[in-house]
Amino acid sequence: MNEDALIARIVERLRGVDTSRLALGIGDDAAAWQPSRSNRSVITTDALVEGVHFTRDVMSARDAGWRALASNLSDVAAMGARPVLATVALGFPPGTDPAWVLEAYDGIAALAARARCAIAGGDITRAPSIVFSISVVGEVRPSNLKTRAGARPGDVVAVTGPLGASAAGLAVAADRPDLAARPEYRSALAAYRTPEPRLREGRWLAASRSVRAMMDVSDGLSTDLGRLCTASGAGAVVERVPVHEAARAVAAAVNASAEAWALGGGEDFELLVAIEKRAFPHLAVRFRARFGRELLPVGRITAELGVRRTDGAPVAPSGWDHMDSPSANPSRSGLARSAGP
Amino acid sequence: MNEDALIARIVERLRGVDTSRLALGIGDDAAAWQPSRSNRSVITTDALVEGVHFTRDVMSARDAGWRALASNLSDVAAMGARPVLATVALGFPPGTDPAWVLEAYDGIAALAARARCAIAGGDITRAPSIVFSISVVGEVRPSNLKTRAGARPGDVVAVTGPLGASAAGLAVAADRPDLAARPEYRSALAAYRTPEPRLREGRWLAASRSVRAMMDVSDGLSTDLGRLCTASGAGAVVERVPVHEAARAVAAAVNASAEAWALGGGEDFELLVAIEKRAFPHLAVRFRARFGRELLPVGRITAELGVRRTDGAPVAPSGWDHMDSPSANPSRSGLARSAGP
Repeated sequence: MNEDALIARIVERLRGVDTSRLALGIGDDAAAWQPSRSNRSVITTDALVEGVHFTRDVMSARDAGWRALASNLSDVAAMGARPVLATVALGFPPGTDPAWVLEAYDGIAALAARARCAIAGGDITRAPSIVFSISVVGEVRPSNLKTRAGARPGDVVAVTGPLGASAAGLAVAADRPDLAARPEYRSALAAYRTPEPRLREGRWLAASRSVRAMMDVSDGLSTDLGRLCTASGAGAVVERVPVHEAARAVAAAVNASAEAWALGGGEDFELLVAIEKRAFPHLAVRFRARFGRELLPVGRITAELGVRRTDGAPVAPSGWDHMDSPSANPSRSGLARSAGP
Repeated sequence: MNEDALIARIVERLRGVDTSRLALGIGDDAAAWQPSRSNRSVITTDALVEGVHFTRDVMSARDAGWRALASNLSDVAAMGARPVLATVALGFPPGTDPAWVLEAYDGIAALAARARCAIAGGDITRAPSIVFSISVVGEVRPSNLKTRAGARPGDVVAVTGPLGASAAGLAVAADRPDLAARPEYRSALAAYRTPEPRLREGRWLAASRSVRAMMDVSDGLSTDLGRLCTASGAGAVVERVPVHEAARAVAAAVNASAEAWALGGGEDFELLVAIEKRAFPHLAVRFRARFGRELLPVGRITAELGVRRTDGAPVAPSGWDHMDSPSANPSRSGLARSAGP
């Protein structure tokens, strides 16, 4: 199959994804769209690399494609924006089965259709291993745009869901495939393989003036809360770490620490928010009524810099750092997380 | 150096690049900007992979960064658009000297500053080889947006400059480094290492209603003219192949065919246009007066499908195809070109 033929097959696989926002889609030098007049545009880029973020034995082609798009959509959610379009650069080694490539696009298409995110174009190239590099453009009302900066001392720190399930799912997929069939571990595997970006939650939270800062938990609560604090010129006290039930179940089976996964595992793609203290209780009630899930308090923002426990012990960033050697993160089975400027 | 420290150093290197169009730059989950109300937005993505598109012995870090951005800017030029911002996803193996990474960003910054293209963010990750994946967003007046479709029988096919110099430069860099010092080969090396995207020319041509179709020559004239014809539902006759002087000089030294490079070498990043026949002479005069270079006629669009020579011999696509094995393109020294959906 030559390149143009493969591209034609990819376009077929993307047929279920709405392209009505595009003025020009796949097939030209660039794609084109008409930005909404009243909105600001946002853009984010995230790569997923075979052998670094996933291996073909722990993740199917479809899940790898889904996962590659999910991390980008999570970043769009963290700005309070709605996705408009994505571009996909895909590199793969010579000899890769075209069926693998097409199934990866099925995963991209499935999540893109759910998120109403057009696939506008991309690039295919040879590469030493499979590399997805996806960019997503989104839109947000200028007054709703949320950043990592803006948290103030006294604000409640909260997350849109319990943490650690993705790291637990990776542990099952990579180290204990014998557990994978058991129903109680399925939610951990799903969190790792097909995470759900919190797009609706992000837009809803962004519309509240009480939400002062927002980001997604992609590198672990310890690392990401540290970043939110640094951007806000503040610190935080962690009063409780909301650990996912599935993480507890897997941790017990593999003799690991579920709390360590919640703090350092990353890739949970929940949203981390700083909320004005007096607004938090009412916002949490409305959040539960709207989404049927909890807005879970983690702690509070402090004037004193640094992230600490209530007993004053520092919470060091334990999330993935791409400049570290793989052995620095043995719990990750050599698989890493994505981050960047 | 940890990840956040490397990102801080990267941000320093990008200091010379104008960010006034950005509402929010590097350092958050996404970047934000205010799209111009009267324009349409365009987006393109292109990857540059070590071992596929370049090797570190034939291309410096700075040139690799420049080259990675140039191919994207060329796509923006081909739409008649001006660049607004770029995102850069960069993967590199553990143990890569941070100085190499920073020099690559110097190359990106140098071209971005020239093109007035902000660097809005990106991603850094481990990868088995160096991979740049860049997306560029641009803007164009809706009435100026040019695509590959729109060429009509009788139109003049022309390019914004002679072809084959990039392939010649690669031949020098990869196979005959002994020639590299000679001044007559410098323009070939520069065409390969630091190509100049035709942004001003693209915007000027896009403003003319006589220009009916436009794309950039990234995969070789034979392949790209075939694509323009397919998109336009037409064919073409190639009457002359404008071969770059530097390509002739190198071809003579290495016993290669300069015309084959011009037809199949790709990466010249000149613009390929179909122009209404009666408008061509006047447009070519104005083009020369404006840019001090020639708008070079290649042939004409035909109703009959396919690309042919004047004697009727078919011009088969000889440009790079990523689904081919490397041995299919021996003249490339195993180095390939980028393309995609």
